[in-house]
Amino acid sequence: MAFHSTRRLLSQCTNRAIVYSQNGDPAKVLTAVSFRPLPPPAPNTVNVKFLLAPINPADLNVIEGVYPAKPSPTPGLTAEPVFVGGNEGLARVTSIGDGVSGLSRDDWVVMTKAQIGTWCTGKNVGVHDIVKVPRVDGLTEVHAATMTVNPPTAYNMLKDFVPLQEGDWVIQNGANSAVGQAVIQIAASRGLKTLNFVRPRENLSELIKQLEDLGATKVLTYDALTDKSLRNDVKEWTGGKNISLALNCVGGKETTLMTRLLGNNAHLVSYGAMSKQPLSLPTSLFIFKNLTAHGFWQSQWYLTRPREEQEQVMNTLVNLMGQGKLKPPKHEIVSISAEDSDEEAGQKVRDVITKISEGQQGKKNLLRLESSES
Amino acid sequence: MAFHSTRRLLSQCTNRAIVYSQNGDPAKVLTAVSFRPLPPPAPNTVNVKFLLAPINPADLNVIEGVYPAKPSPTPGLTAEPVFVGGNEGLARVTSIGDGVSGLSRDDWVVMTKAQIGTWCTGKNVGVHDIVKVPRVDGLTEVHAATMTVNPPTAYNMLKDFVPLQEGDWVIQNGANSAVGQAVIQIAASRGLKTLNFVRPRENLSELIKQLEDLGATKVLTYDALTDKSLRNDVKEWTGGKNISLALNCVGGKETTLMTRLLGNNAHLVSYGAMSKQPLSLPTSLFIFKNLTAHGFWQSQWYLTRPREEQEQVMNTLVNLMGQGKLKPPKHEIVSISAEDSDEEAGQKVRDVITKISEGQQGKKNLLRLESSES
Repeated sequence: MAFHSTRRLLSQCTNRAIVYSQNGDPAKVLTAVSFRPLPPPAPNTVNVKFLLAPINPADLNVIEGVYPAKPSPTPGLTAEPVFVGGNEGLARVTSIGDGVSGLSRDDWVVMTKAQIGTWCTGKNVGVHDIVKVPRVDGLTEVHAATMTVNPPTAYNMLKDFVPLQEGDWVIQNGANSAVGQAVIQIAASRGLKTLNFVRPRENLSELIKQLEDLGATKVLTYDALTDKSLRNDVKEWTGGKNISLALNCVGGKETTLMTRLLGNNAHLVSYGAMSKQPLSLPTSLFIFKNLTAHGFWQSQWYLTRPREEQEQVMNTLVNLMGQGKLKPPKHEIVSISAEDSDEEAGQKVRDVITKISEGQQGKKNLLRLESSES
Repeated sequence: MAFHSTRRLLSQCTNRAIVYSQNGDPAKVLTAVSFRPLPPPAPNTVNVKFLLAPINPADLNVIEGVYPAKPSPTPGLTAEPVFVGGNEGLARVTSIGDGVSGLSRDDWVVMTKAQIGTWCTGKNVGVHDIVKVPRVDGLTEVHAATMTVNPPTAYNMLKDFVPLQEGDWVIQNGANSAVGQAVIQIAASRGLKTLNFVRPRENLSELIKQLEDLGATKVLTYDALTDKSLRNDVKEWTGGKNISLALNCVGGKETTLMTRLLGNNAHLVSYGAMSKQPLSLPTSLFIFKNLTAHGFWQSQWYLTRPREEQEQVMNTLVNLMGQGKLKPPKHEIVSISAEDSDEEAGQKVRDVITKISEGQQGKKNLLRLESSES
């Protein structure tokens, strides 16, 4: 490490954010900036300190400018307006404005407003843009920092489209994705059976074991979808019971084949398109089997559902997490010390993103931006 | 015409049906058979005489064995069990079994049970498989004979998926189909605007004129869908109002492009696949624009909706027809005289079907099977 002349003046700049001023390759456009302590919170707002904030794939798409949700620029950090990266994260309440009820200093909160900019140490947020996370036994920081996107996506997709009873089956592809793993666990906690499809790979038996340990009933590769015997196998596993819900984050041919395993009056819910192929379905499935195809976007859910429902879902997820029924994702924490210079901090973030972009890391990276402000 | 030695013995065989004993090319497998007068109707049934029964494209698919709805064989017509063709038709009540209320001799009825076999002169039917057609002024036999499939398909698709207000827009392709024309008229009767797509063709301006006369707001060809200026044109026509319902009987690329004209939270309802191409849609439309894709099948509607609703829809359609707001399709009536031999009758039907299969006739053929039974 070279000697750094830009060591921060801690007394003046206790906060830091990872920002960009224009869209582009996140491994290039992101920089770290330091900024002064937050002023006391205005009425109906609180100041928070972020403890841990994941780098999600969608965050990179937002920075690239190819994601439909656009953040608003944050004023006051630098001379020109900049965007703070990050959509999800766990924060701790540090001070409370007038008129705020139900929140105390040191409470944990997560963001319900999309694209709020979580890759920073401290922030002022409106009370309607956050929800309190009960500190139940067994709930870790990693759990809480990753609980507002993937787990509720899984939970809501299993709840909002088809009334499922214990013993009912659900099919999904991309079963190894963060949402896929949450689907397996939440389904298992409800006594639902899951038929899971994953990409063929070298260490398949290891992955199957891992997903079965989470509660997967069956795990198959996309290759099995072209196997003529599959339909009979499925019939045997389900005891001939119709499958009425399929969850899709892949698209393309695999999804067409998976959808054929559904019974009459079923629902196909898409929340991703990892194959980058469109959803292509025979019209006859819609007309003669009464298939309905939906999309699900958790950001939209937060915009349209009442606060009580949001809190209820968060509490349910927190309890599952506390009981060990919903495990945190495999992860790696990227710590940025309060004493790192902005240059060092920026470089660390860009390096992690380069590593993420290079491929199948199989774990979630979480930023821990340390600050000297408490 | 050759001399026919098989002239029917009217005193014995007053009824006739167009039948097939196995699936195949309808222009080959269909024959006419004569059968004896119907016995008096059993309790809760009535005997009816068919006045007019259309030859719909789906009827040919049923005979080919490629349609998901399968008829039951009709016993007693011939030594081996045979299937009577036809799904739709207008009949007149000729005699009434015990326990039947709300029906009188000479009442008009149409079939609500699919694949009942309408290509015959007389039939015994259960009261729950028919619905009475009020004889309002202006309602013709052709109206009533074609009212159970296409008009309710149009009516229900405009009613069941999106709550539409006067001035709202609906998009559809295959706008020249029988359902498409009904959509245009029913939409116009509700003050809805329609953006209609049709295949490019030579006599386009004539077709546009014809659809506009029915009440179409805009008529364009599929070629316009690839025109970049279309989106702005549509915005201008709608005054920027979101379009939230698209009706599709085509599939393939045209439907993908049409769906892109929809706003957020829209519904795409498919009732046909004339292009024989699957429905291929970018997953992003489902996730980020909250598109929902459904199918609609009128046969299924009859199976799942209460009788009151069925009667209500039929009455609404009858009133629209009577008021001249829902015109009968362009048609040609194929009359088969009671004095034709079965051979002649069968040949007439096969000839018509050959003509239909050869292509774009642009009109509906309706069978009028005459019998000497009154």
